[in-house]
Amino acid sequence: MHMGEFDLIERYFKRPAHKAVLGVGDDCALLQPTAGMHLAISSDMLVEGRHFLSTVDPARLGHKALAVNLSDLAACGAQPLAFTLALSLPRADEAWLSGFSEGLLRLAEAHGCELVGGDTTQGPLNICITVFGEVPPGDAHLRGNAQAGDDIYISGTVGDARLALDVFRGTQTLEAAAFEQARLRLEQPTPRVALGLELRAIANAAIDVSDGLLGDLGHILKRSGVGAHIDTTWLQATQTFGNGQAAGITPLLASLPWNKRLDYALSGGDDYELCFTAPVNQRELVHAAAWEAETPVTRIGRITETPGLVVLDAQGQPLARRFASFDHFA
Amino acid sequence: MHMGEFDLIERYFKRPAHKAVLGVGDDCALLQPTAGMHLAISSDMLVEGRHFLSTVDPARLGHKALAVNLSDLAACGAQPLAFTLALSLPRADEAWLSGFSEGLLRLAEAHGCELVGGDTTQGPLNICITVFGEVPPGDAHLRGNAQAGDDIYISGTVGDARLALDVFRGTQTLEAAAFEQARLRLEQPTPRVALGLELRAIANAAIDVSDGLLGDLGHILKRSGVGAHIDTTWLQATQTFGNGQAAGITPLLASLPWNKRLDYALSGGDDYELCFTAPVNQRELVHAAAWEAETPVTRIGRITETPGLVVLDAQGQPLARRFASFDHFA
Repeated sequence: MHMGEFDLIERYFKRPAHKAVLGVGDDCALLQPTAGMHLAISSDMLVEGRHFLSTVDPARLGHKALAVNLSDLAACGAQPLAFTLALSLPRADEAWLSGFSEGLLRLAEAHGCELVGGDTTQGPLNICITVFGEVPPGDAHLRGNAQAGDDIYISGTVGDARLALDVFRGTQTLEAAAFEQARLRLEQPTPRVALGLELRAIANAAIDVSDGLLGDLGHILKRSGVGAHIDTTWLQATQTFGNGQAAGITPLLASLPWNKRLDYALSGGDDYELCFTAPVNQRELVHAAAWEAETPVTRIGRITETPGLVVLDAQGQPLARRFASFDHFA
Repeated sequence: MHMGEFDLIERYFKRPAHKAVLGVGDDCALLQPTAGMHLAISSDMLVEGRHFLSTVDPARLGHKALAVNLSDLAACGAQPLAFTLALSLPRADEAWLSGFSEGLLRLAEAHGCELVGGDTTQGPLNICITVFGEVPPGDAHLRGNAQAGDDIYISGTVGDARLALDVFRGTQTLEAAAFEQARLRLEQPTPRVALGLELRAIANAAIDVSDGLLGDLGHILKRSGVGAHIDTTWLQATQTFGNGQAAGITPLLASLPWNKRLDYALSGGDDYELCFTAPVNQRELVHAAAWEAETPVTRIGRITETPGLVVLDAQGQPLARRFASFDHFA
């Protein structure tokens, strides 16, 4: 099958422009930003074999490619607006494109985030999305805003995505139903956009957890010039919130040996949950925000004036062991 | 050598933010768009072996990666503002990164276009840049604005980039000095940003020529529901403008057999010149714009009411031969 580049874009990705002044198909897309708002921009590149397995369902991959970008907007407290998609494909596979665009555009529509342009080319599979959102000046949660004394929170659950990856790699085993649950977390993560918006003017600092909780929290600490004590009692049992969602860790993780549980939860990666800090006197507002966003949050520690990241055991004693963090090229 | 992803970004790409509220290093960059302006966005992905040769000088590649995006802004008449860079690299090669970032940032600084964020990952070499510019509402030259009777123009010279590619491929030969001249056009194209800005409110439709003059003009015709007659007398000799720049074709092309010259000039590709249309009564303003932008332009034809793209010989008779256009996946 031969199909021109332009037909490809038209057929699978073009939708009528609503927010954009001008959408897919010209040299540039044109957006009309809301006067007085800051434009939040994030760009992520996903490479086959590194960010996803070649066998992944294309609809899930389309979802994930946008989800990881929306997750960056969520961390900033920005309202999604639009995105561009650049796609390098080995061949124009209609079944793949159909699935990929379906998963991508379903998530885009759910967030009112419009595909406004992009590029397609032939080459090794590579997906680059750049996403745009809006946030009122001063409301963005930045990495450098954490204050000594702040509570530290994590949204949703952490560790399942990495557990699924280890099952794929053959270093862990899970029963089929449990694997499917973990695998969904890996392949189809939920960007915490609603929570990010609710936390405007409540949270001080935030980051989305892509490389592991401790590693990403480390970026907040470094940028803010502070340290942290991380509790581990929240890893001892699964908590379930009002809407039935688990928080902190899932039953999957709770069934693992303690050290494995720590590894997955604290340095697993690919979680796309929000790790954020907020003043102690904002606790009620944090829980109200979580309730409004229908997203459980768990308080997991405290920002300290003294630099350094200390993980405490159930008795409040520092753990001697170290935790890895994911880093490209490391 | 092992170098963390974050060190990589900091070391080679981080510059103090001037225009951006928040630059490289957080989950999102933050821009403060000018109230009332439209935001023009374009994204291009460059793949090794398809858009550049693996042996290309990294500084030239850095230049080209941004130039092809600035060229899209130029086609829209937008003032460059900022860009994001997503980079997939097989390895963290310091010499390569140093050259690439130097070429990239030199062009960025020349256009006041700030690197505000991005992503680096390990994988097959792939460069994805998304660029942002501003244009007053109504001033953007869109592909669908060409009017029957409009003059058609091309900026600078066309065909040399493809000639250089054919020398690399061994299907053409050139003397060393001539090859270096053609090669610079292929490897380090000049985005016509100044011309694009000067043509605001003068040009009707515009496109940047990346896939060949006739093919790209075809996008204007299709979108505008019009046709065109293209003259070829401008291909018969090299013209030199006041500032010494050649227009239409260079002496390199003028020395080739007529049919080869047509091929290279009309369907060569990778030129990154502006093809635009303007009303006949704007001719003086077009030439004034070209003068102000220090960019020669050549009038090459006329938009017709009747659809179809007709290339005329020196006697005004339609040429029977066809011209190819570059198309990914074709």
